[in-house]
Amino acid sequence: MQLGMIGLGRMGANIVRRIVRDGHTAVGHERHQGHITELTNELGDSFRGSTDLREFVGMLDAPRVVWVMIPAGATGAAIDQLAELLEPGDIIIDGGNSRYHEDIERSKALAPKGIHYLDIGTSGGVFGLERGFCLMIGGEAEQVRYLEPLFESIAPGVEAAPRTPGRTGEPTPAERGWLHCGPAGAGHFVKMVHNGIEYGAMAAYAEGLNILDHANVGAVRGDGEHSAEETPLEHPEYYQYDLDIPEITEVWRRGSVVASWLLDLTASALYADPNLDSYSGRVSDSGEGRWTIDAAIDTAVPVPVLAAALFQRFSSRGEALYADKMLSAMRKAFGGHNELPPK
Amino acid sequence: MQLGMIGLGRMGANIVRRIVRDGHTAVGHERHQGHITELTNELGDSFRGSTDLREFVGMLDAPRVVWVMIPAGATGAAIDQLAELLEPGDIIIDGGNSRYHEDIERSKALAPKGIHYLDIGTSGGVFGLERGFCLMIGGEAEQVRYLEPLFESIAPGVEAAPRTPGRTGEPTPAERGWLHCGPAGAGHFVKMVHNGIEYGAMAAYAEGLNILDHANVGAVRGDGEHSAEETPLEHPEYYQYDLDIPEITEVWRRGSVVASWLLDLTASALYADPNLDSYSGRVSDSGEGRWTIDAAIDTAVPVPVLAAALFQRFSSRGEALYADKMLSAMRKAFGGHNELPPK
Amino acid sequence: MQLGMIGLGRMGANIVRRIVRDGHTAVGHERHQGHITELTNELGDSFRGSTDLREFVGMLDAPRVVWVMIPAGATGAAIDQLAELLEPGDIIIDGGNSRYHEDIERSKALAPKGIHYLDIGTSGGVFGLERGFCLMIGGEAEQVRYLEPLFESIAPGVEAAPRTPGRTGEPTPAERGWLHCGPAGAGHFVKMVHNGIEYGAMAAYAEGLNILDHANVGAVRGDGEHSAEETPLEHPEYYQYDLDIPEITEVWRRGSVVASWLLDLTASALYADPNLDSYSGRVSDSGEGRWTIDAAIDTAVPVPVLAAALFQRFSSRGEALYADKMLSAMRKAFGGHNELPPK
Amino acid sequence: MQLGMIGLGRMGANIVRRIVRDGHTAVGHERHQGHITELTNELGDSFRGSTDLREFVGMLDAPRVVWVMIPAGATGAAIDQLAELLEPGDIIIDGGNSRYHEDIERSKALAPKGIHYLDIGTSGGVFGLERGFCLMIGGEAEQVRYLEPLFESIAPGVEAAPRTPGRTGEPTPAERGWLHCGPAGAGHFVKMVHNGIEYGAMAAYAEGLNILDHANVGAVRGDGEHSAEETPLEHPEYYQYDLDIPEITEVWRRGSVVASWLLDLTASALYADPNLDSYSGRVSDSGEGRWTIDAAIDTAVPVPVLAAALFQRFSSRGEALYADKMLSAMRKAFGGHNELPPK
Repeated sequence: MQLGMIGLGRMGANIVRRIVRDGHTAVGHERHQGHITELTNELGDSFRGSTDLREFVGMLDAPRVVWVMIPAGATGAAIDQLAELLEPGDIIIDGGNSRYHEDIERSKALAPKGIHYLDIGTSGGVFGLERGFCLMIGGEAEQVRYLEPLFESIAPGVEAAPRTPGRTGEPTPAERGWLHCGPAGAGHFVKMVHNGIEYGAMAAYAEGLNILDHANVGAVRGDGEHSAEETPLEHPEYYQYDLDIPEITEVWRRGSVVASWLLDLTASALYADPNLDSYSGRVSDSGEGRWTIDAAIDTAVPVPVLAAALFQRFSSRGEALYADKMLSAMRKAFGGHNELPPK
Repeated sequence: MQLGMIGLGRMGANIVRRIVRDGHTAVGHERHQGHITELTNELGDSFRGSTDLREFVGMLDAPRVVWVMIPAGATGAAIDQLAELLEPGDIIIDGGNSRYHEDIERSKALAPKGIHYLDIGTSGGVFGLERGFCLMIGGEAEQVRYLEPLFESIAPGVEAAPRTPGRTGEPTPAERGWLHCGPAGAGHFVKMVHNGIEYGAMAAYAEGLNILDHANVGAVRGDGEHSAEETPLEHPEYYQYDLDIPEITEVWRRGSVVASWLLDLTASALYADPNLDSYSGRVSDSGEGRWTIDAAIDTAVPVPVLAAALFQRFSSRGEALYADKMLSAMRKAFGGHNELPPK
Repeated sequence: MQLGMIGLGRMGANIVRRIVRDGHTAVGHERHQGHITELTNELGDSFRGSTDLREFVGMLDAPRVVWVMIPAGATGAAIDQLAELLEPGDIIIDGGNSRYHEDIERSKALAPKGIHYLDIGTSGGVFGLERGFCLMIGGEAEQVRYLEPLFESIAPGVEAAPRTPGRTGEPTPAERGWLHCGPAGAGHFVKMVHNGIEYGAMAAYAEGLNILDHANVGAVRGDGEHSAEETPLEHPEYYQYDLDIPEITEVWRRGSVVASWLLDLTASALYADPNLDSYSGRVSDSGEGRWTIDAAIDTAVPVPVLAAALFQRFSSRGEALYADKMLSAMRKAFGGHNELPPK
Repeated sequence: MQLGMIGLGRMGANIVRRIVRDGHTAVGHERHQGHITELTNELGDSFRGSTDLREFVGMLDAPRVVWVMIPAGATGAAIDQLAELLEPGDIIIDGGNSRYHEDIERSKALAPKGIHYLDIGTSGGVFGLERGFCLMIGGEAEQVRYLEPLFESIAPGVEAAPRTPGRTGEPTPAERGWLHCGPAGAGHFVKMVHNGIEYGAMAAYAEGLNILDHANVGAVRGDGEHSAEETPLEHPEYYQYDLDIPEITEVWRRGSVVASWLLDLTASALYADPNLDSYSGRVSDSGEGRWTIDAAIDTAVPVPVLAAALFQRFSSRGEALYADKMLSAMRKAFGGHNELPPK
């Protein structure tokens, strides 16, 4: 099968590599010739590409299948341009991190032109080439069926995890790493919630490890001074541990309830940089975590954990400062309390 | 009636002033002669004091009533020393912010000596002289009854707030501003929860005002760059307001549902320092907020709001840093994301 | 001055009463004749009304001032109908709880017709007649100035609260209980955040009082059975208090840091129904609390307390059930744990 | 090597099976003869046991190694009894879920008798026999070294997970699944935080899946009625998805960022019971989650996610009811709002 790919960054290029590996061919489009040349050199006859969108479309066989894999903010314009050049029966895939609302609107806008639209939430990050990509797909069933050979090449396959007890016979697509979740937007909806969960799980590890990092405060701080401004540590004898956090994340990887791929990565990051000296602690967020909370609020679903995880990211970037100053101002006002200087 | 006061800081001195105003007399003890001299000059014959604890005790008439009003961390030792000098029938009051566990133990330890013990959670801060102090009292009913004349002078009195609809006849002690909450520790237990609520309510205002402070980000930031590292503002047109936060807190003081004494103080602080330039945003916490959460956990009470308020104070002091770095490290590991520099 | 009021429910009728009290006149519109007749009987010549919208408009002198005070969901349609009947120079006020996004759009849509639009967040609830209403106003400065006489009658006035220390001279409008917050939408934006704060502050009280309600679990439950499914209470001796929560809320009203109008209402509710037997605990939410979190997320403001307060309302209505079942299913899966029956 | 095991429940028996499999021998003690007989039949000469503690101790060779694997609430008494029968040089292991404070005290109390004490946090649940147990060990280095052969048999071994990139040469003990974390209590401290993280991660999945479960509310509820008591769904068209949650959890197991053992179990539970009909949603908690928050509060570590996860468990058991009623009472008081009936 042939796939057109717009955007040959890490994710796009690795999807191309996985399908070519399985005997499919690919055509790429990118503003920068560099990425195209690189992939041409690497993949030989199985790959062609052009920096010109019209030329790119011309290289594709009908029905054209074009996967758009670029930053969410630029996707809309790119699809609009692309749609101008496509024909009835062609298929556009948005594999980026668009908000699912846009999928609903785009698929409606494209329908009168006979252009099909799939939204595919794609998880796997920088490891996707090797591990395969987890695909969460929204759109019409017919197009999903048509593209199944590509999905099989891109997704990790059933061997990527032990089969769930009780599941027998032919593995379902989900067991092979891709799933048709529902109509337009369903793929990005599921991917959005996936990322919301990711934020929550990441925060769970980060908070827990932070406690481990503080396990020696009894030795470091003693029981504090006796002031009305600071709570002394009641039991300094309970916080005398110098814990080896890199080794702890390593031991949890084997046999424990919190073993996970995120933990694997955490152990890996801590092995490379045991004190996390290369990070400043300003944590970005990229849309899905926010939209997850929005969706929860719309549907009245309580998500205290997912929301707390998001808010901590905001705080890490200094966005709580005004509120914190306000608290200090109130304390000063009712109790005459002055702020303590940083330690 | 005569009251002995150990600790002549702002709270202790103001309690003395309130009772003397009503015709009672007071004896004070402090390490520093300065505070004693000051009060003697101010209050004349109604006040005497000594820097020597034994001499202080000697100035008191039996049954002695000694109110200890010093930082929580120093209270235990002070009471131990004091108890050595007292006699059966005397009464010790801990008016500070001790953990109520200690009240339970202290009252048990003092009982065999015939010394009575009351724990009195005292709220009112720097405004107590003028507004009166709200007294939450734990201990034996007999001693509470005996000290009623003092409580009446220290507490704000029934006029301090409109009577609750339906309440008629002789106002209860609670309506006059003091309450016998229960046996030993009950006073500090109620005061502890009071402060836990205070933390939550303060955070509610601070978070809301922080949103008001961000109401212009659409004008300031525009819709951001299109990067995978930062979510663009979807609707910059919704965030174009330059709000006058000092005036907003002022208008809420009259007629709104969130009118409160904390809001009065907030409006006052913002009037004096409209941009909060005199604060750095490092918010202290002083025990009760923490113990409130501990008590909630012991008794399986969900307190997501009170806990979030406490944790934000920790974060304001930089205690989330290790966790934040960990999140950045994970993001780097799975997605190749680099931290954005501070704006 | 003359005011037209659409919607004569409690809020609308009380605003009419307050302005008539000050010598203004009012014209009302309502689907039900009952409310109109009632007000006519009560207010005499100062009030007229009609169930017919066109007739209502005909009763108004140009430039017409029409305040719409109906549920948010119905406001849009009502304003559209009304605008058809108005003329250039007339003023529409949305005094309900519309989302401020709609104000921005509406004011734009009405501008070409020469109709002015103000959004007024109105706080005061059922007590507004007596206490006055706190008015947060968005729109053009000229119209706000024009309507000042009405705002002065509706708002509580400067006597409603002690003046903030340092404020002298002629009180600002905010000190009198009304504020021009900014252009279209600013009034409802500020009211939205006001309600978000309200949710947080309410939750702070509710959580704290719930701890007080559990203060006797050591007596009731003892130290529990020793099972792997339930944490025994480590120190039952610390939870032996039978606290009088109605009296505690009463005592906090005088002199304490948490004194507030919400606390006044809480004390009142508890005096009338000490065990809250008339409530089931299903807590509604009405939009502003949700929109506050949405706005915080848009602007990257951390609001852990306000969000936790909202989510607890969702939980109170059973919306966490699926998540809770999922947790039980996981515990069963990894630990063989069975759910304990309800106590 | 020989191991004595007190408590032959699932965890204890499986530890015995794993060491016997590797050529070690075991001696068991249990109140019920049944478990002993069963293991004797299964393991032949490698296992003996007694319901009598003294007889059990007599079957052990000096220096005796006794692993206590019983519910946390009963561990203290069991160790006291056991210590009476042991001799200098013997080793007691607490493999249960004791609070680490107790380890610090116990190890001190046993030291004068020459009895060594290790605390071993043991994770693995019902799958430990097959997957091995993750061991987090506190105590003296010499005893840890001595028992290494047993730990090697009980832990999963290096093959249980791919080696972390960069790690070469002889795998560390942590890579083999066991770790000497530090002095007395360090093992249970690390296990406690492990479980805290587990609570947070579980909640992240549960909340996210709950959103998926609500993805069809636009179809089910429409846009709601227009009442002041309930927020209508602004965009019902965005919530029309009927998602197959069991298949979604399955697809996430392969290639996605949230792949984890907890997710494997979740997929498994959902495959067996797609609608979770066998659960009521009353979620237990068993100590470590609570103690984790206590430790965070002691050391001023912000843990909003871990705490929210714990509090939701309390809520799931009805412990928020009083607070929820209070909120309804306040809403009634200021706004005249009545609670809506359950849907």
